[in-house]
Amino acid sequence: MPKQDVDLAELWPQTLHALEHEGALLVVAGKDGKANPMTIGWGTIGNIWGRRVFVVLVRPSRFTYGLMEEAGDFTVNVLPAERAGDANLCGTRSGRDCDKLRECGLTAAPSRRVRSPILEEAIIHYECRVVFRNDVTPDVLAPEIRSRCYPGGDFHRIYFGEVLSVYAEPDARQRASGP
Amino acid sequence: MPKQDVDLAELWPQTLHALEHEGALLVVAGKDGKANPMTIGWGTIGNIWGRRVFVVLVRPSRFTYGLMEEAGDFTVNVLPAERAGDANLCGTRSGRDCDKLRECGLTAAPSRRVRSPILEEAIIHYECRVVFRNDVTPDVLAPEIRSRCYPGGDFHRIYFGEVLSVYAEPDARQRASGP
Repeated sequence: MPKQDVDLAELWPQTLHALEHEGALLVVAGKDGKANPMTIGWGTIGNIWGRRVFVVLVRPSRFTYGLMEEAGDFTVNVLPAERAGDANLCGTRSGRDCDKLRECGLTAAPSRRVRSPILEEAIIHYECRVVFRNDVTPDVLAPEIRSRCYPGGDFHRIYFGEVLSVYAEPDARQRASGP
Repeated sequence: MPKQDVDLAELWPQTLHALEHEGALLVVAGKDGKANPMTIGWGTIGNIWGRRVFVVLVRPSRFTYGLMEEAGDFTVNVLPAERAGDANLCGTRSGRDCDKLRECGLTAAPSRRVRSPILEEAIIHYECRVVFRNDVTPDVLAPEIRSRCYPGGDFHRIYFGEVLSVYAEPDARQRASGP
């Protein structure tokens, strides 16, 4: 059965659970069309500017950062519980040194509305177009977050992605790792 | 029955529906302890820095802006369907000119974890402490959003609130205006 459109908020409990546990996969294709997955644990969704948005953060030191700056779009993908370990594996390698998709046994597949691909093996997909970005800056950040998350600097860039499409496997709720 | 703790994502579909329709109420108390409600239609929730966050936006021209800068905390409150019109009413007045709570027949009640109060009549409550803020800047904002949302400038400040407490009426799901 094909993946089905879902409302933005419908599978947010499952997506937030993935973010807070094994991680979700942010996928971006560079100018050369080659896609790279990055494991993310942070993100927010909602409505800003009258548009549904998915907010993600990427450190400038990451390989994905250059791709995000080039691409202007991204997808967020949630793996099923039985493949939760793959998100973790993706978090331990850099796309600079290897083909992370191949290393993790994941397959890029065409998106519906953006250029960056989705991951075929994932069960929940958000396709997003970057409409705004700004940066985490140390001066107005709570001191305990600054010392805990940024001991060496490398402050995240915050990308605000307009969600153009959200869809999922019909049994995504059952196959997700939680809640 | 007292209001009950809920998980951050549990009533997000109802909260997002309120934001996108009648509005939710952002409540902030200034230094003098006087609370002011502002109707909001935008917001995102999720996890950033390993903390649950609620992101809200306030224009510098708003009375609430000065209060937010003073207070460092806020609450977001969702009214039941039968009082949806009150959120709208709150959106048409300024706290500079009147006591908006009284005008709207709403009651400030003590929060559990922050100084800004909640609204007793609301059915879903998020208590938040500001941990970071930055601004919408025109240079990297999608042009169609810039022209539609900011024809006169007055770019929003974005407040990232760490969610310290989320709770709701036991029948909040049934009493919410949607989905």
